[in-house]
Amino acid sequence: MDLKFLQNLIVPAQTKIVMLIMDGLGGLPLERGGKTELETAHTPNLDGLAEWSALGLTVPVGPGITPGSGPGHLGIFGYDPIQYEIGRGALEALGVDLDLGPDDVAARGNFCSVDAEGLLTDRRAGRIPTGESKELAKLLRTIKIDAAEFFIEIIKEHRFAFVMRAPGLGDALTETDPWKTGAPTLPVRALDPDSEKAARLANQFIEQARELLADVQPANMIMLRGFARYPAIPTYPELFGLRAAAIAVNGMYRGVAKLVGMDPLQVDGDTVADEFTTLEENWNDFDFFYLHVKKTDTAGSDGDFLQKVRVIEKVDGLIPRLMALEPDVVIVSGDHSTPALLKSHSWHPVPTLLYSKYVRADNIAEFGERACVRGSLGLLPAKDVMPIALANAQRITRFGA
Amino acid sequence: MDLKFLQNLIVPAQTKIVMLIMDGLGGLPLERGGKTELETAHTPNLDGLAEWSALGLTVPVGPGITPGSGPGHLGIFGYDPIQYEIGRGALEALGVDLDLGPDDVAARGNFCSVDAEGLLTDRRAGRIPTGESKELAKLLRTIKIDAAEFFIEIIKEHRFAFVMRAPGLGDALTETDPWKTGAPTLPVRALDPDSEKAARLANQFIEQARELLADVQPANMIMLRGFARYPAIPTYPELFGLRAAAIAVNGMYRGVAKLVGMDPLQVDGDTVADEFTTLEENWNDFDFFYLHVKKTDTAGSDGDFLQKVRVIEKVDGLIPRLMALEPDVVIVSGDHSTPALLKSHSWHPVPTLLYSKYVRADNIAEFGERACVRGSLGLLPAKDVMPIALANAQRITRFGA
Repeated sequence: MDLKFLQNLIVPAQTKIVMLIMDGLGGLPLERGGKTELETAHTPNLDGLAEWSALGLTVPVGPGITPGSGPGHLGIFGYDPIQYEIGRGALEALGVDLDLGPDDVAARGNFCSVDAEGLLTDRRAGRIPTGESKELAKLLRTIKIDAAEFFIEIIKEHRFAFVMRAPGLGDALTETDPWKTGAPTLPVRALDPDSEKAARLANQFIEQARELLADVQPANMIMLRGFARYPAIPTYPELFGLRAAAIAVNGMYRGVAKLVGMDPLQVDGDTVADEFTTLEENWNDFDFFYLHVKKTDTAGSDGDFLQKVRVIEKVDGLIPRLMALEPDVVIVSGDHSTPALLKSHSWHPVPTLLYSKYVRADNIAEFGERACVRGSLGLLPAKDVMPIALANAQRITRFGA
Repeated sequence: MDLKFLQNLIVPAQTKIVMLIMDGLGGLPLERGGKTELETAHTPNLDGLAEWSALGLTVPVGPGITPGSGPGHLGIFGYDPIQYEIGRGALEALGVDLDLGPDDVAARGNFCSVDAEGLLTDRRAGRIPTGESKELAKLLRTIKIDAAEFFIEIIKEHRFAFVMRAPGLGDALTETDPWKTGAPTLPVRALDPDSEKAARLANQFIEQARELLADVQPANMIMLRGFARYPAIPTYPELFGLRAAAIAVNGMYRGVAKLVGMDPLQVDGDTVADEFTTLEENWNDFDFFYLHVKKTDTAGSDGDFLQKVRVIEKVDGLIPRLMALEPDVVIVSGDHSTPALLKSHSWHPVPTLLYSKYVRADNIAEFGERACVRGSLGLLPAKDVMPIALANAQRITRFGA
């Protein structure tokens, strides 16, 4: 079922959908016979909600595939993450709140160190402090080439996001990182005729950067990789007729949400409770809210099982504030699994709960991986959750006579 | 898995399949914690059959999609309802037993009222009685244009099915209904060059109808919409080698069945018991029987929970007559859900039972929505049921060496 097909069936309604994403929610027991993080957490509110919900497990991309944050989110947002790939450069740019448009090509940039012959001596320029790299970014921002515009934002230390803006830029471009010291940085090459202008522009930029940084130590050169245009994704307003808001503390998630046409809301503070306050304050102005909890993933990546349990319990404590708003449809899920056991994202399906007045409730009063196996949503592609949520919000009309 | 692949594996057998479709079978509890219509119904025979069946829930079209009767039936008949769409006009024509062939374009027709300037005063001509519109249909049948043939059958009141037959007719045609009074009815326009002949023909027909009806009150004009060619669908005999019969009281279901190559059988009477009698009388002449129960859907659409329960119980009482015929494979399912709570078709998956001597029985002695969640068929696209039924009927040979 493609998005065009769905789009043609969308009708307006006065209903509200909340998608609560605990990043990396899915987990694993630390030892045989044990419980996962979610199963271990004391979650009376989520369990109560589960009783009147349909439960299932979502597959973010495909069987056995571990998603990054971009594909993980696109999936649960309703898009096929294989069809709509977000290039590395674009994701980095979105992550530092750089706006991307159809005339832009983004890349991931590195400050690096080269010797007098231009041979690479340190691919990361000694991981210079962020304060220092922010000063160097100001230098790079002075570069002017024809009518093109350039945007540079430091991500952290030696890493920056790079965007060039001009009409007619392709992104079939090779990277300049030779991935070994002792070799010269490489020129950008166009892999198709449509990308030749972009290659020329990027090479000119790099040459000017080399001259500007010549006397800096140790960051006397830059490298660019992961060139990517703004991915053309049909947006929530276009596709679903939804006024959609994103509530996320971290820039990358606001960026992915913006890409699909959500309005990123200002969160005052950086706790999950602050995010719920933002939800309450903006309740009347949107039809759809994506609320992102980062710390479940952080704890999982750190291998900190108990911290992940605590974050889940904290979110559980906030569920009554969500339900007090009387949402028509609530989705609680994750963009992927991040088991503390693996200290990284994983391929495991993600426990998912869909609540509404019209859902066929499974009457399973427990939100956990193994409880969700018994649920009526079954094992389903993450992208199938949104159509079911829209149906429950009475925003899809009948197909065919 | 496409139908061509399946077709190549079909082998003949002396087995019989019965597909019992309770229209709109799936339901919802009226209140939190309650049972659905099917769960409420006392169904000892279906429960007994369920014990030795594989259970599951079918998704008619796709996640969150509410199907009309056409797509709902195509799905359970084994076709992808998105790939094989039946246009409005074709469905209406099939519903009044008009035969459709490859040279036909069908449309939904309305008698309407226009003033002296030709401006619409009533889109439905005061909903004239069916007896009156049947007389007007006779007038329209006198229209002759070149070698084309026209067929008109009254559906009810001001509504009729319209078919024009001539070689080389396309169906990319605009409707003539302006959807508001005070405006003139619109000419048919061709949206592609292949449809120009059909547009010319339709417009000539409308002009002659205007002249013929000029002195009639209030139905002095017609409008046409939903132009659709006969959808080219591979049939049951071609695809599966099945001599297939359709047992349905209502015309539209006989029509859809005819479209896929089933023979609609004459039912003497209009009760479900009469349909079972037709089944018994024709048992020796076919390999496959589709038996349609309409009143589950009617009760659901009326919001009459208890009536839907009673219809299900009535069908349950007839199951022994079905089993006495010793069918090799029995499917009990619906074309979609029609919960009384929603008073309309819905997107919810449909409880489905597949019985045969060779099925891996779930030993769940209950036929209901939540019992089916635990079944071994899982949550499956409706179109996947027929291949499994054919396998159980030993009509599919091995794939590959």
